Amino acid sequence: MLIKNVDILTVSKDAKSHELRKNASIVVKGEKIEKIIDANIPVDDNEVIDGKGKLAVAGLVNTHTHTAMSFLRNYANDMNLQDWLFTKIFPAEDELTAEMAYWCVKLANIEMIKSGVTCYCDNYFFMDEAARSVEETGIRAVLSRSVSGISDPTGAKLKESIDFFKRYHNTCNGRIMSTLGAHAIYTSDTDYIKRVVDAANDIGSGLQTHLSETRTEFDDCMAQHNMTPTQYLDSLGYFDVDGIKIAAHCVHMTNNDIEILKAKDVSVAANISSNLKLASGIAPLPELMAAGVNVTLGTDGASSNNNLSVLNEMRLTSLIYKGLSMDPTAMNAKQVISLATSNGAKAISRNDLGEIKEGMTADIVLIDMDSPSVAPATEPDAALVYSASGADVDTVICNGRVLMKGRKVLSADEERAVFEVKRIAEKIVG
Amino acid sequence: MLIKNVDILTVSKDAKSHELRKNASIVVKGEKIEKIIDANIPVDDNEVIDGKGKLAVAGLVNTHTHTAMSFLRNYANDMNLQDWLFTKIFPAEDELTAEMAYWCVKLANIEMIKSGVTCYCDNYFFMDEAARSVEETGIRAVLSRSVSGISDPTGAKLKESIDFFKRYHNTCNGRIMSTLGAHAIYTSDTDYIKRVVDAANDIGSGLQTHLSETRTEFDDCMAQHNMTPTQYLDSLGYFDVDGIKIAAHCVHMTNNDIEILKAKDVSVAANISSNLKLASGIAPLPELMAAGVNVTLGTDGASSNNNLSVLNEMRLTSLIYKGLSMDPTAMNAKQVISLATSNGAKAISRNDLGEIKEGMTADIVLIDMDSPSVAPATEPDAALVYSASGADVDTVICNGRVLMKGRKVLSADEERAVFEVKRIAEKIVG
Repeated sequence: MLIKNVDILTVSKDAKSHELRKNASIVVKGEKIEKIIDANIPVDDNEVIDGKGKLAVAGLVNTHTHTAMSFLRNYANDMNLQDWLFTKIFPAEDELTAEMAYWCVKLANIEMIKSGVTCYCDNYFFMDEAARSVEETGIRAVLSRSVSGISDPTGAKLKESIDFFKRYHNTCNGRIMSTLGAHAIYTSDTDYIKRVVDAANDIGSGLQTHLSETRTEFDDCMAQHNMTPTQYLDSLGYFDVDGIKIAAHCVHMTNNDIEILKAKDVSVAANISSNLKLASGIAPLPELMAAGVNVTLGTDGASSNNNLSVLNEMRLTSLIYKGLSMDPTAMNAKQVISLATSNGAKAISRNDLGEIKEGMTADIVLIDMDSPSVAPATEPDAALVYSASGADVDTVICNGRVLMKGRKVLSADEERAVFEVKRIAEKIVG
Repeated sequence: MLIKNVDILTVSKDAKSHELRKNASIVVKGEKIEKIIDANIPVDDNEVIDGKGKLAVAGLVNTHTHTAMSFLRNYANDMNLQDWLFTKIFPAEDELTAEMAYWCVKLANIEMIKSGVTCYCDNYFFMDEAARSVEETGIRAVLSRSVSGISDPTGAKLKESIDFFKRYHNTCNGRIMSTLGAHAIYTSDTDYIKRVVDAANDIGSGLQTHLSETRTEFDDCMAQHNMTPTQYLDSLGYFDVDGIKIAAHCVHMTNNDIEILKAKDVSVAANISSNLKLASGIAPLPELMAAGVNVTLGTDGASSNNNLSVLNEMRLTSLIYKGLSMDPTAMNAKQVISLATSNGAKAISRNDLGEIKEGMTADIVLIDMDSPSVAPATEPDAALVYSASGADVDTVICNGRVLMKGRKVLSADEERAVFEVKRIAEKIVG
């Protein structure tokens, strides 16, 4: 497969070294980027994608979401977190069946493909159905059957989670990965969290979790354990496992917390929209980044965002930290692109992703720079962060396979998924 | 014309009274909404628009922008305001010709139509060309040939502005309105501002201006006049003219400033994205709203946003004030919809706009609620604010005329406008 006549934003580990290669061609062979040529190659091939007027960037990585929650999008808004969770979200989730979850994940997969996301980290239940949708739609995912002590008195769910990891981790040509994960410190006691950590060490799994999302969580932990949530999890060995270690939210952080995350090589999945919408606060991303912590972007579930668009998060991330710091040079476009690509790849321990370079795995998205809300794209990195929206994503390639071309999703039936999830929402919360 | 089978969010002056009328029909006759019927009417008519799966809302009002600046989109980002203005923006603007401005306005008009904006307030120069584009594209605008003392030593520009008002105000079936306006207090001396105020009183014009955008503007004004920018303009009679009175930005405000704006019936055009991107600060919208000031939403120019999407601003407005106040019930979806519709209509002194009701002028947009990034739209007002983006706008009607249907702009050549503005950008800043 050849993508010709395209401008490439290559992305580098160091944001200052992102490079724009104009009017180049990308040769994809199997799952890999075989070659990048700084010229337009005249070819006669069935599998040529014309990249004229488009910008090629590495597929965006959404490091924290709950895909099956898409049936709860636009339900129960403008509410207090506790009321929202206990009177609306938890009761609705109790009604969800496995088959329903399959369609909800499918819709989320389609939404992410359509907005340029090629890889995401999921934390929920019904993971077999989630894996089925990932297999079919061709997207890449790190799937965690999230567990909590309060809902797992017999340990059956932790067993299910371990079993899922063993069956699915590194399957589907590397498109499906898995980790274990305790939901959060406030839904499990110390013994249960220790069991999750032990299990992770046993089977060689990484760990995901929600961490320091709200002030209440932070204050309660201090009162109960005389430690911050980060210190508490660290004391249980949560950050000493091998492989993927993602802490989502990290809104309320002390300097010592930041040092711990850096020392233990934990990646932070920031969820800016969700934290604003639920009024949880604003994560100290500049401080985390200055300390060398690997910061990435998540959307959280559709119920608290209410999108799964990493491009939305990129724009918001840049704007909000400029505004808060009163420094317009803060959180510039290049840095934000790193958060959503190369840092995301690092968070899931995949050094073959997150950049468009020879030898890398071909997760590539083409963004339309000639859209009337993006053109003129004089500075393509700024156009990507400040002007482009999900609807400007034209073509999506994951693991060398074209999942969307000209806005048409090739690997799933979009109308059917919308129809099914509307019906589920109608039934449960309509 | 009949829009059938549609859900209508009617909007009211009081945000709490917004009403959802499901599966209704809207009869449009000429420029007016003749009738709304709470039933699906079986008809055989050429001019039927099927509203199934769509939400009808009043056309969005963008109360502050500079349309001709679209050639500067994605040029000079992540910069300090003073460097940005004096080393990048002003020199580039000097190169712009009238014919170039025409195409830049045209692109901006297309972008706004495509994102559901039916009316905007413009502050720039080359206003004859701006009016030409507004006439052709069918959108509604309040056009101000913005003037400043430092660039108008002979008074020729103020004369041009007065002349433009006389020729264009309330023309084009009411689609074009006009006001005078001094750009800002820091680009005109007291005498010049007084002349603008006198001229407005002479010809019966309203006034627009930039007000208290940056801390520097505020501090300099205090040092020079021992008054805040708001107090200073008020002392010159700026807020005593009749008709449209719009103060854009209003980031740095005292309680007394807020009282003045309320007492003098001045509408505030908030420009949240632009103020964040240029790190000017965050306007006290909750305080302004609590005091009864008419708060509305603007995008500012494409050079500092970098879009002209009021839907973007709606989502951002709700999220940021929830986050800052740590109150998830703050700035709810219904309130934000008011800012972008009925409050916008009030700001431009048009009580026939901003709501979908019998007898109102037909500025109506239909938003696709079945988009995979919007569905399920269990709470349609939340879907509009938190999920919908410009790309979900399906149909746009302004003054009874269909400007876009099924995402296809009928009143302008989109590709041509993109082509021309890219060429202009290439020439001036490429």
